[in-house]
Order: sequence, then structure tokens, then C-alpha cells
Amino acid sequence: MLFFTQCFGAVLDLIHLRFQHYKAKRVFSAAGQLVCVVNPTHSLKYAPTRCAAAQTSAEQGVPPPCHHHEAVHDPQLVPCTCPLYSCPWEGHLEVVVSHLRQTHCINILQGAEIVFLATDMHLPAPTDWIIMHSCLGHQFLLVLRKQEKYEGHPQFFATMMLIGTPTQADNFTYRLELNRNQRRLKWEATPRSVLECVDSVISDGDCLVLNTSLAQLFSDNGSLAIGIAITTSKVHNAEAEM
Amino acid sequence: MLFFTQCFGAVLDLIHLRFQHYKAKRVFSAAGQLVCVVNPTHSLKYAPTRCAAAQTSAEQGVPPPCHHHEAVHDPQLVPCTCPLYSCPWEGHLEVVVSHLRQTHCINILQGAEIVFLATDMHLPAPTDWIIMHSCLGHQFLLVLRKQEKYEGHPQFFATMMLIGTPTQADNFTYRLELNRNQRRLKWEATPRSVLECVDSVISDGDCLVLNTSLAQLFSDNGSLAIGIAITTSKVHNAEAEM
Repeated sequence: MLFFTQCFGAVLDLIHLRFQHYKAKRVFSAAGQLVCVVNPTHSLKYAPTRCAAAQTSAEQGVPPPCHHHEAVHDPQLVPCTCPLYSCPWEGHLEVVVSHLRQTHCINILQGAEIVFLATDMHLPAPTDWIIMHSCLGHQFLLVLRKQEKYEGHPQFFATMMLIGTPTQADNFTYRLELNRNQRRLKWEATPRSVLECVDSVISDGDCLVLNTSLAQLFSDNGSLAIGIAITTSKVHNAEAEM
Repeated sequence: MLFFTQCFGAVLDLIHLRFQHYKAKRVFSAAGQLVCVVNPTHSLKYAPTRCAAAQTSAEQGVPPPCHHHEAVHDPQLVPCTCPLYSCPWEGHLEVVVSHLRQTHCINILQGAEIVFLATDMHLPAPTDWIIMHSCLGHQFLLVLRKQEKYEGHPQFFATMMLIGTPTQADNFTYRLELNRNQRRLKWEATPRSVLECVDSVISDGDCLVLNTSLAQLFSDNGSLAIGIAITTSKVHNAEAEM
């Protein structure tokens, strides 16, 4: 009996180690909440040559990109909204999600409330942690970015963008929540549309901003857990009036 | 009838103008909440000569300060906890509140929930906005500081300290809340004791931190309203478990 117990323990240890070393994005459920482990990606946005080459090889099966706007521009086409790469792709808003999934391998999660667990917070800036979130019939892009706005002083910026128009975005409220060691930080706002560039949202500072010291206070073993909830704006307004 | 309506309007305008130009700290009640208007004070902590002179003249009636610790040190004495001045005063914890009120003219407010309205947010760093808050049988010191941790990049730091021991402080939770333009930012934490220096709390970044851009987003006409609530820790823990 003792032998079987030990064997079972060893198997559990192996599963645990396998899980710890599994480097891809992964999802599990803890205490009824959907937890999504998101690994960092070093931003290649400012390395266009390397990026363009990667895009060309990856973009098979997707309509040919509108290279440098040489073709006649269709006003209904939107550029690629991936915050990681300077991607030449253009397409209709309805196909942005499939482009982000297929070309940029950004995962999509279902659920009104999820936990975004960003790993390896110590990595140097610029680094992004990105996931798509499907909720209330729409898709949202959650971006956590480590960036040095002031040289030598990296900060973390977290925001949520609706993959839709600004008018559609006005109907929602998103909440990001950090909670650890008897400290709690909550940010609530209307999501911006992906048609507005994520870079400008971050440079405006209209998002959750964390200094390195605050990020460390909320981190556990190098990972930062951000609770995410999306509601329709009517609920938000009713709460504000209370 | 029209004449009386116009007269009444003119009187209201005059009251409004008088109120706008009244420069001292003032308190009023808006929508059932106690609003305390707090004017900034340029921090003189790093100008000891000027500060010492001001202290000497102001300190009449208060026991003579323990100059440079020449006398035998009583372990029950605590230094002055005023974040504004390098004050040589020392006294028992029980008389810190009266010292802060009498010598440093820091106002004290009663009430479980108050709104701290900091004016003139545009003033250059270092600047402090300070108020004492009496609640649940204890006194708390609320400090909002504009400081350049990184040269040329001022930030705002807000924290609440209990005028009591660290053990007493552990029994409370304070909440600071900013709410404007469909954005909301909440910070909840256990207050630190005034026996720990406010400067170290701010340098550790263990408080509500705002970049200038975020502070502007939450400001209205150069003033920042911070909602403050204090609860006992048991309530906080129960909420966290929900």
C-alpha cells in the first residue's frame, strides 16, 4: 500500500514539474475562476526587417497584405492591431480576431471573469503579455506592457481594448484588479477601440500604471495575477450612482 | 418677480466667487459626504535653518525640544511625525496629535468617509497636501505628496498612516478612491504607523502612485478629489473572501 502511495506521489511530482516547465500559454481553473498563464513576448515592433520576414512566412492562407499602401485604399479596411509586430496586414474589422489568432498566435479565452497570470515579470523592457478575451458577445484584447517611458525606470501598463469600433467600446466597462498581501488596487474604465493604437493609450497613461516597486509588491514568485471583469456600461453607471 | 430671481442669482454668484477665492483649508458637505479642501504646502523638510527658526517661534507653550538628542533619551518618546518639517520635537505618542495641530497647524476631520480635495495640483514638486482624520477612535494622517523620484518626472504618492503603533495599525484598512470621467482607481491597504517614516513608505512605493498624466485625468480644474474610507481589518478580510 505504501509502495502505491509513493508511486502516486512521484507521479504527482512529475506532473507538477512538467506543468512548471511547460512554456506555452496555458489555462486552468482555480477556485472556480479561469486562470490564464500568459508568457511574455519581447516586442519586435521596432525591428521591422526581422518582423516583416516573420510575417511573410506566417501569412500563407491570409489575403496578400497591402504593401506600403500602394493599392487603392479601402476605408473599411483596418490595419493589424497586434501590439507586438509592425505587421503590414490590412483587413475588415470582422477578421481581425482570426488574423491575431492565426498569424500572431494570440490565445482567446471565454468567460466574464478571468485571471491573467503574467509570468517572468523580471524580463527587461520592452516586453508584452497579450491575450484575447471573449465576453458578452465581443472580443477584447488585454495588453500588459513593460516599457521604459523614462530611461532606466521601467513601468507596467495594463489596458483592455475592444476589437470593435469606439461606439461599441463605449457600451462596456472593464476592471483590472490586483490583490495580494492585504493590498488591493482596482482600475475601472471604458475600453478603448483597437482602432485607436495601444501605443497611444499607453503614452497617454490612460490605463493601469504600476511602478516596478508596486509590481513587485503584487507579484508572487515573479508572476503577476490580474483579475479581469467586463460589464456593460449600464451596470457601471448604476454602481457609480450608488 | 424676475427682479428677485436675478438678485438671488447675483447673491449665489457672489457666494460662489467668495468660496473660490477663500484660500484657507475649508470643509463642506456635498451629497452627504464631508469634503475637505486641502491647500498645498511646499515641503521645507530639506531647508533645516529656515525650518528650525519657524519651529522655535511656533513652539511656545510646548515642552522644550530635545535638541540633537543631547539629553538622556527616553525610549517612550517619539520624534515629530510631521512630513513637512525637520522638527526637533519629541514627545509621547499620545501628544503627537496635539503637537501636529498646534505647531504645524494640520487640520483634523471627523467621519468614517470623507473626500480629500487637493487644490493646485500643478504646483512644482516637492509639495505636500496633509490632513488628519479622526475615525473609529483613532487618528490617521493622510499625506498626498508630489515628488520627483526621477528628475523631471513628478509623481503623486498618497498614503495613510495611523498615529499609533504598528500593532494598532494592523487592525485597520484604508481605501483611497479616485472617480472621474468613467474611470475609477481604488487603493486599499493596511495603514502604516507614523513611527515608520512617511518618506520611507513613499520611497518603497507601497502606496497609491499616480503619474502626472493619470493625475490630470482624475483632476477637475486643477483639484484632485480622493475619497477616503477606513474600516477595521475584519471587514476587509471578509470582503476579500467574497
